Amino acid sequence: MWRLYHFTLCPFSRKVRFALAVKGVTHELVQERPWEKRPEFTAMNPAGQTPVMRRSDLGGTDLILCDSVAITEHFEEALERTPLLGATPEARAETRRLVAWFDQKFYAEVNAPLLAERMYKRAVLKGAPDGGMIRQAGRMADMHLDYIDFLLERRAWISGGQFGLADIAAAAHLSVADYLAGLEWDGHEPAKTWYSAIKSRPTFRPLLAERLEGLPPPPHYDKLDF
Amino acid sequence: MWRLYHFTLCPFSRKVRFALAVKGVTHELVQERPWEKRPEFTAMNPAGQTPVMRRSDLGGTDLILCDSVAITEHFEEALERTPLLGATPEARAETRRLVAWFDQKFYAEVNAPLLAERMYKRAVLKGAPDGGMIRQAGRMADMHLDYIDFLLERRAWISGGQFGLADIAAAAHLSVADYLAGLEWDGHEPAKTWYSAIKSRPTFRPLLAERLEGLPPPPHYDKLDF
Repeated sequence: MWRLYHFTLCPFSRKVRFALAVKGVTHELVQERPWEKRPEFTAMNPAGQTPVMRRSDLGGTDLILCDSVAITEHFEEALERTPLLGATPEARAETRRLVAWFDQKFYAEVNAPLLAERMYKRAVLKGAPDGGMIRQAGRMADMHLDYIDFLLERRAWISGGQFGLADIAAAAHLSVADYLAGLEWDGHEPAKTWYSAIKSRPTFRPLLAERLEGLPPPPHYDKLDF
Repeated sequence: MWRLYHFTLCPFSRKVRFALAVKGVTHELVQERPWEKRPEFTAMNPAGQTPVMRRSDLGGTDLILCDSVAITEHFEEALERTPLLGATPEARAETRRLVAWFDQKFYAEVNAPLLAERMYKRAVLKGAPDGGMIRQAGRMADMHLDYIDFLLERRAWISGGQFGLADIAAAAHLSVADYLAGLEWDGHEPAKTWYSAIKSRPTFRPLLAERLEGLPPPPHYDKLDF
């Protein structure tokens, strides 16, 4: 049995959870608050970050997977069903480019500041967020929604002709920014239409149902019509 | 023919160059200064970052690979010779975990501040670097060298039993920090012995021979005995 150590508002955990659901990998969930640096968690992943996956039914040593890219690449190699990277070298390169775009660029410009100000400072430290940081994250989020519109005016899915890991990565990161009231969807019809289709998927809905105690999302967060 | 758009002190470019040399992929080099945002470069990679690889001899559309992970995964899939990720799922997961460690953690804690202060502020803007930032990067670099020592006391290579992509990623990132005088090797014998072996490889030496105009490395930088 696989066990996934995740945090509800960690976009990398969400990417892995959505991918596992699409690929049909059953797993137990363990909620981890990485900033608490639980020794048993740091022993599994010295980087101290979610997500981590552990498989304990192998008889010998447990298999431990750290880092969301290592996890998704592992299941892409291990399970032929529902390939998420694409069929051709071109498609795979484009999917991986866009996964890196959301994991690195969207995360650094939008989710890292929103998580620091709205989640960590407010919900954990009970302090006041920095309004300037939040406004700057909102401006960057708008540029990212413009780029998603640009892509979706040229292709059916963010990954290309077919739904794939770039859609999963985008949905994971956008859903965290949306939970933290960092997205203004008006004026982004292609992105809205795409995200509404993602939200209606049974493999994505469990993520939208979760709440972090003391930090409710905005009312539109889990609605298909937003 | 492949063309690689790189920047001499970009650790992600160095990772790709070292990997291509080990795998024997011939390519032309184009030096790119990503902060200048050359329109032809941004058209290839909207993220505006090195490295980018382009193949123009395919007849139809050029194949463009953006992001160092997308590039190394592409060549791992395309060329069976000299596998760099490992033979088993466990080895591959460990290699990818450590590549992410250097690309994300070492980069954010050591190379990003060193490149900002010692390369961009000093060599490009001709300004004064922030000494506090540089000292903090040095403290983090020392913790990373401790972790490399810890790994190398338990295994032959950073990737595990065999040389692989985690060694390549580590060497790429460490070489940039070393160029920027950010590493204090004394007291890190396992890391030193490993890096001396890397430095002697004909596939790595061309990287050590390059210089950035106006920003010389410290005297020990390209010496095997340092």
